[in-house]
Amino acid sequence: MTVKQLTLPELTEACVRLGIGGVGLWREPVQAYGVDAAAKVVREAGLTVTSLCRGGFLTAIDAAERARALADNRAAIDEAVTLGTDTLILVSGGLPAGSRDLVAARERIADALSVLAPHAADRGVRLAIEPLHPMYASDRCVVSTLTQALDLAERFPSSQVGVGVDTYHIWWDDTAPSAVTRAGAAGRIHAFQLADWTTPLPAGVLNGRGQIGDGAIDLRAWRDLVDAAGYEGAIEVELFNDGLWARDGVEVLRETVIRFVEHVVPKK
Amino acid sequence: MTVKQLTLPELTEACVRLGIGGVGLWREPVQAYGVDAAAKVVREAGLTVTSLCRGGFLTAIDAAERARALADNRAAIDEAVTLGTDTLILVSGGLPAGSRDLVAARERIADALSVLAPHAADRGVRLAIEPLHPMYASDRCVVSTLTQALDLAERFPSSQVGVGVDTYHIWWDDTAPSAVTRAGAAGRIHAFQLADWTTPLPAGVLNGRGQIGDGAIDLRAWRDLVDAAGYEGAIEVELFNDGLWARDGVEVLRETVIRFVEHVVPKK
Repeated sequence: MTVKQLTLPELTEACVRLGIGGVGLWREPVQAYGVDAAAKVVREAGLTVTSLCRGGFLTAIDAAERARALADNRAAIDEAVTLGTDTLILVSGGLPAGSRDLVAARERIADALSVLAPHAADRGVRLAIEPLHPMYASDRCVVSTLTQALDLAERFPSSQVGVGVDTYHIWWDDTAPSAVTRAGAAGRIHAFQLADWTTPLPAGVLNGRGQIGDGAIDLRAWRDLVDAAGYEGAIEVELFNDGLWARDGVEVLRETVIRFVEHVVPKK
Repeated sequence: MTVKQLTLPELTEACVRLGIGGVGLWREPVQAYGVDAAAKVVREAGLTVTSLCRGGFLTAIDAAERARALADNRAAIDEAVTLGTDTLILVSGGLPAGSRDLVAARERIADALSVLAPHAADRGVRLAIEPLHPMYASDRCVVSTLTQALDLAERFPSSQVGVGVDTYHIWWDDTAPSAVTRAGAAGRIHAFQLADWTTPLPAGVLNGRGQIGDGAIDLRAWRDLVDAAGYEGAIEVELFNDGLWARDGVEVLRETVIRFVEHVVPKK
């Protein structure tokens, strides 16, 4: 999504040229390209699919809507299998229309996970609950902190459900560092994503994630923390940014690699 | 600020007509009207000034900037005295330009409070640290949760420093209810403000606070919680909302009273 202006072949070619060994994919562009075809392009480029975004939206009260959500998540699990990734990232969902009950919404997520997690595990896919910034609590994700995500995940085996750590969502939270350590000790950090925090936020607050190094987050400190917690998986850079999307995608990818080296790779 | 389109005399007249016994004031309109003149208008209308907003912005590293901030807060304390309110609400301040160190910024707030709090107490004014929503963490307030605010406040006597509880900022936080209880038990809830959470957020995310009842927050539950914590002070409605500001101010005030009765006053 960081360079959604690129086609999948453009993306994989640029990744290979820049020495990027893996790529996290989103479902919409993969579906538009064709899941099998996408899997082939990435595989033939020699890239790993680090994760698939996203399943989730599991907070519906209405039975038909809940059934649709479960079916959609099963489809996402199938797509992950086809793409050859072991990680499906979940955005849990917001409050159903007319509801003001965050606690009940979080409980419905746990209910849905009890159906989905064993099924995903049977297919070789683990689920990563990603807490989203509290500014998305009403309309996208009632799971707002890493501690909440971990509390949900810990109801299931770590091989089935873990958490996604995304700096954009948790950087402000002074309880997040200890939650990272706790998640790492339990083998539950299933994804690690970077974006920087820049202001002013754009209307709708969706597409204002900052390029690495442009914002307020000490990204190297978070990387060190996640490293120290025992995480050995991929580090994804996930930027939703209208400004970056308006630029040449290969140039943005190149810039992102440079910024990653400057701001994230350990200095020695 | 909910009806900033009204002059102070228009505001106090409308409050009296609607049976609103107290009003929280902001410094800018008070200064524009003249602090002594504002105090006189409110006093002659028979209204209480429930609080003054806002002091704070105490995170500067630069010595001259820090001295300016302390002087400005002393001026705010003087204004509170003139207005006859015992509560000055603090918005702590964001990260200084170029800094990514939230922990150090929070520590500088504590340092500044150790200077300001005894001075304010000498003048009969108590300080209320208001946590702001995490979406303001970089540019307005590094204190993002009620627990953080309370941890800061508890370094000082409760007669000097407490917290401001504003539903808009803390509604998403599952640790906030226990923090309310803890704050109430310690006599540290120094202000209680309501706004509802509506989406989509506007650009800049400052002026999108929802009218009571329009959004995702169970305001009556928060009011019950704050009541149960022993709070007996005023309940303020503080809406920053371009849509409300574009309307007739008296009509907005009337609507707010109706919404307050519908959504906040206990049903029996």
